[in-house]
Amino acid sequence: MSLLITGSIALDSVKTPLEEHHDLLGGSASYAGVAAGFFTDVNLVGIVGSDFPQPYLELYQKHRMNLDGLEIADGKTFRWSGEYEWDMNNRRTLSVALNVFEKFQPTLPASYRHTPYVFLANIAPQLQLHVLAQMERPRFVVADTMDLWLEIAREPLMELLKKIDCFILNESEARELMKETNLIKAGRGILKLGPKYVVIKKGEHGCLLFGEGHVFSAPAYPLEDLHDPTGAGDCFAGAFAGYLASVDRVDAVSLRNAVIYGSVIASFNVESFSLGRLQTLTPRDISQRYEIFRAMSQFVAG
Amino acid sequence: MSLLITGSIALDSVKTPLEEHHDLLGGSASYAGVAAGFFTDVNLVGIVGSDFPQPYLELYQKHRMNLDGLEIADGKTFRWSGEYEWDMNNRRTLSVALNVFEKFQPTLPASYRHTPYVFLANIAPQLQLHVLAQMERPRFVVADTMDLWLEIAREPLMELLKKIDCFILNESEARELMKETNLIKAGRGILKLGPKYVVIKKGEHGCLLFGEGHVFSAPAYPLEDLHDPTGAGDCFAGAFAGYLASVDRVDAVSLRNAVIYGSVIASFNVESFSLGRLQTLTPRDISQRYEIFRAMSQFVAG
Repeated sequence: MSLLITGSIALDSVKTPLEEHHDLLGGSASYAGVAAGFFTDVNLVGIVGSDFPQPYLELYQKHRMNLDGLEIADGKTFRWSGEYEWDMNNRRTLSVALNVFEKFQPTLPASYRHTPYVFLANIAPQLQLHVLAQMERPRFVVADTMDLWLEIAREPLMELLKKIDCFILNESEARELMKETNLIKAGRGILKLGPKYVVIKKGEHGCLLFGEGHVFSAPAYPLEDLHDPTGAGDCFAGAFAGYLASVDRVDAVSLRNAVIYGSVIASFNVESFSLGRLQTLTPRDISQRYEIFRAMSQFVAG
Repeated sequence: MSLLITGSIALDSVKTPLEEHHDLLGGSASYAGVAAGFFTDVNLVGIVGSDFPQPYLELYQKHRMNLDGLEIADGKTFRWSGEYEWDMNNRRTLSVALNVFEKFQPTLPASYRHTPYVFLANIAPQLQLHVLAQMERPRFVVADTMDLWLEIAREPLMELLKKIDCFILNESEARELMKETNLIKAGRGILKLGPKYVVIKKGEHGCLLFGEGHVFSAPAYPLEDLHDPTGAGDCFAGAFAGYLASVDRVDAVSLRNAVIYGSVIASFNVESFSLGRLQTLTPRDISQRYEIFRAMSQFVAG
């Protein structure tokens, strides 16, 4: 089954203690879309400016992304620039220029409205709701978010939570949303706000999947060399939703495997800047790393 | 096979935001010994004062602990008092009185010297070395530590690392020891300092076991109600070593199961103050929780 993805599309400048790169393909929809494309066809909904490089459009298409819902507007593409410190966990935003993204209020192509799986990547919850409202009875809806929306758009976010099946957020966002330091309580609390499933990403500590009456704990890939953490969460969520769409089944086994495939794709993505590593990723790379995840979390003999 | 354990024995006063208790049985050897006693016979090496309550000696014996190596000295037992904040992750030591522990320099009973498995619970590395030097060719030696020794006894700690098989420490200690923020690099780095295996405890994030060429990632039990975290690490390590002694086999499968059994016992221990919960713990409780660990970390179908 195919997957609709909406989110931001940006040209990024990223600085780490060792390297600096400009005009990289970025934004939550770019990362999520390319990640999902390893599993299924993607209907992209987004906006770019007339300065958006043609090679990036070709890159999208190479990764099974349908661009009928991509608006190319007069003006400049959304630009973001950020810097990482030595431990790569702290990111500082240096500048943001919304540009054409400021007027993003998409009308979905008719051909998109019946897409059975939906991933609302990180953008303002008002926009996530706006896109979701145009979908005709989607089978499974996943949404991501970021700390900013908890702070400035809590009300639409709470409304969104009632309309989605699975909510993905990171550890600190979960604690902040529920005003609760115990992560298990926070995860179970979020289930009561609407979604049937909650995934809490814990970075180097892996992630937790909560459903009614069960918790799944996934390890993180034992990464030693992190080159650029940008987009890891978007790749995780895109691959998670893409995998579910590809198997077209939502149950304990498929959800857990979706978490692992999400972790696999995210672990590759941080090995180079922007979407560099995913450009050369093969199905064999993916299955080998899936096997490493299995091997590192199994403890029963035999 | 039996397990020799040395470490501290204390009378604790513990304050949490909700409760306060005094003269509790505490110390690394008490927690580790009772935890190990669920799996194997324990030869205890420690020191207490003449004020040490008789019921605590009986408690030790009830938990398969041989007290031939327990010195009852004139004077007072080691006392510790601490306080936890609301999130239960931050502990503040309010007072420490070493008392008889200050002159702890044990001579092991002859009957102890051939104990095949050894766990050096958290005490000064000089003391851990002193006990280890009296052992006759032990089969497997596990040692725990704490941040204090990294700061004030780094040299004997480095000497200890060359003489043990498995080193257990927590996340922040691992980063501090190796001056390395990446936990995977830190764990692999510690292997180069001597031990064949390293276990890094990550609290609510579970733990990592490192051996040459492999990593095992264990989840944490999804605890919602933490009453007293004191001794969780000691229980983990005691049960880990006790399980290995009980199966008398050290390989990938037994080590991974030891990590899980360590996590199981530690997860029970924090449910009440001191060793309260472990007093009523049954083999059925243990196997049920082991099964929860299995269920929450499995993702392959079938």
